[in-house]
Amino acid sequence: MRKYLILAPHQFLENAKTAHGVIRYAEDETVAVIEPDFAGKRVRDVMPHLLSDAPFVSSVAQGLRYSPTALLIGTAPKGGALPAAWRGEILAAIAAKLEIVSGLHDLLNDDAEFVDAARTHGVRLWDVRVPPEVPLFSGAAYDVQPPIVLAVGSDCAVGKMTVMLELSRAARERGRRPAFVPTGQTGIMIAGWGIAVDRVISDFAPGAAEQLVLEAEKRGDLILVEGQGGINHPAYAPVTLSLLFGCAPDALILVVDPTRDRIESYSVPRLSYRALIRTYEALCATVKPARVLGIALNTRALSESAAHAAIDAARRETGLPVDDVVRFGPSALYDAVAPGILKGRVLGERVTA
Amino acid sequence: MRKYLILAPHQFLENAKTAHGVIRYAEDETVAVIEPDFAGKRVRDVMPHLLSDAPFVSSVAQGLRYSPTALLIGTAPKGGALPAAWRGEILAAIAAKLEIVSGLHDLLNDDAEFVDAARTHGVRLWDVRVPPEVPLFSGAAYDVQPPIVLAVGSDCAVGKMTVMLELSRAARERGRRPAFVPTGQTGIMIAGWGIAVDRVISDFAPGAAEQLVLEAEKRGDLILVEGQGGINHPAYAPVTLSLLFGCAPDALILVVDPTRDRIESYSVPRLSYRALIRTYEALCATVKPARVLGIALNTRALSESAAHAAIDAARRETGLPVDDVVRFGPSALYDAVAPGILKGRVLGERVTA
Repeated sequence: MRKYLILAPHQFLENAKTAHGVIRYAEDETVAVIEPDFAGKRVRDVMPHLLSDAPFVSSVAQGLRYSPTALLIGTAPKGGALPAAWRGEILAAIAAKLEIVSGLHDLLNDDAEFVDAARTHGVRLWDVRVPPEVPLFSGAAYDVQPPIVLAVGSDCAVGKMTVMLELSRAARERGRRPAFVPTGQTGIMIAGWGIAVDRVISDFAPGAAEQLVLEAEKRGDLILVEGQGGINHPAYAPVTLSLLFGCAPDALILVVDPTRDRIESYSVPRLSYRALIRTYEALCATVKPARVLGIALNTRALSESAAHAAIDAARRETGLPVDDVVRFGPSALYDAVAPGILKGRVLGERVTA
Repeated sequence: MRKYLILAPHQFLENAKTAHGVIRYAEDETVAVIEPDFAGKRVRDVMPHLLSDAPFVSSVAQGLRYSPTALLIGTAPKGGALPAAWRGEILAAIAAKLEIVSGLHDLLNDDAEFVDAARTHGVRLWDVRVPPEVPLFSGAAYDVQPPIVLAVGSDCAVGKMTVMLELSRAARERGRRPAFVPTGQTGIMIAGWGIAVDRVISDFAPGAAEQLVLEAEKRGDLILVEGQGGINHPAYAPVTLSLLFGCAPDALILVVDPTRDRIESYSVPRLSYRALIRTYEALCATVKPARVLGIALNTRALSESAAHAAIDAARRETGLPVDDVVRFGPSALYDAVAPGILKGRVLGERVTA
């Protein structure tokens, strides 16, 4: 188990999705957060829903009082380059023999100064995004025994990881042994294993997804895979398809932010619920059939009454169970979809005609 | 312009798809082929359809008589490792100052002995598969002016590259300036440019496809993109989708081997013509609409009468123009699809509902 000191100076509120995910969901404890803007306060004072009493501090030096074992880069700076001011903090952490954990595109292990310092102090630099070598997809995923559930979405950054973490929690409360499968850097930091599938060479991305469900089979009796991208995302849809085919899911959970009308950063309209379901199910039907069993809405931007209205509208349009599992808890959606997931593996028909 | 000496000892007939493609289609001339099994004969004696009088020789030393400028590895050895016997030939070619051109997964530039020799003799080692750094998909492909046509298929290795090269030939004969866009190693060797999209990191594969059509816009008035994989190929479909979204095609040509009933190496059935058309068009409709305008069948394994029957059956099933452009020439199919391709850009409707 790690004890994390999280680095997120002047960015904790706005640009620290990784920090928030790790604080809220990781089994590893966050002992302090470097954010001078809130020094003296605790995480709960600023973001109550993260359920953490970790203190904010102003520097690595101050954070060391809380006995961390690792420094985690908690933000994703625009362009992927590390702010110059952060280098000194990272070097201070290395000198204090903390492991450094980073999900940045710019790799710690490509930085000669960090590599030298890490060698001197016997410290590991963990670039979470660097994938291992994986074989081509083999079809072994088709023989995995526990049910495999994949989150698919209307776009990237709509909450697919959070939905699967919340459903894992509900499954655990009901006595199952869920294996959450991380497919991106924050998920990997939370679970302590996984592969950032978006960094794998295209030919091998379904093979990476397959390796993840083969590993998950050893870890639990219900496999819940974090999704990536969206099936009509012009840049990231191939990663979505790598998971859809490579994980060989038995069932899908659709995650939608109903307040977005187009794919983030592109002039491509968001698909309707029905078009999303049709598109995902039609693709699965060409390889291994799987059905969308429920819909998780991200209603963060809506009032509570507007959230209920959006949930009702999605229910009417699709006839499926719908809920916001962050806002209203995961139990209702889990109980609605679990029978379908657990009853057996024939949830759709293969289509060739 | 290069003059190729092609290395394919004891594998020319069975396992030299790259050699065949380069001999038949590259503008660069093949001056000789190293294949001791046929020494004394010419390519035309063994494979008449390659239309080449290049002689077979037994070694690099013999091949040098024909004044090559480059040695091209013409086969794909199983497992990607270079047979030990070939190393000596490659070193002999480097010593003779030939450029070395390779599409192998094992990179020449990772091999210390080859790198040292190349440095000593001032020779370039061109690993065709290594992609350049490319940006994320931006949407600039949507503004490319010439019509963009993408080959899509029922599986990999059904002839998508050959179909687009044949259609390029027909377009040229009719006075157009077609730009053939290579997306895999053999296509790159034939055209002298391109990106092996299957080697690009997943997040950037659509960006690579976009860079290719942006480059093609400078090269011609009709863009014909070599396809990859197949949309229900469990391992390679994400590369297919990277081209489908990243190239932003206006029209699709469907390439099918009707004699295969399942995806090569997998227990996944081949889709029917109608299911293939529906699946490809449905995906395009979610981002930028495009229609399948014609079907190219690969009837190599069929008798001539069986080939005609297969073509007729595909026509009846789909109502589209169908032909085998290798067996019967590309003119008929080109003339049938060109009006649709050239008449304008609105070939389908975006679907969101």
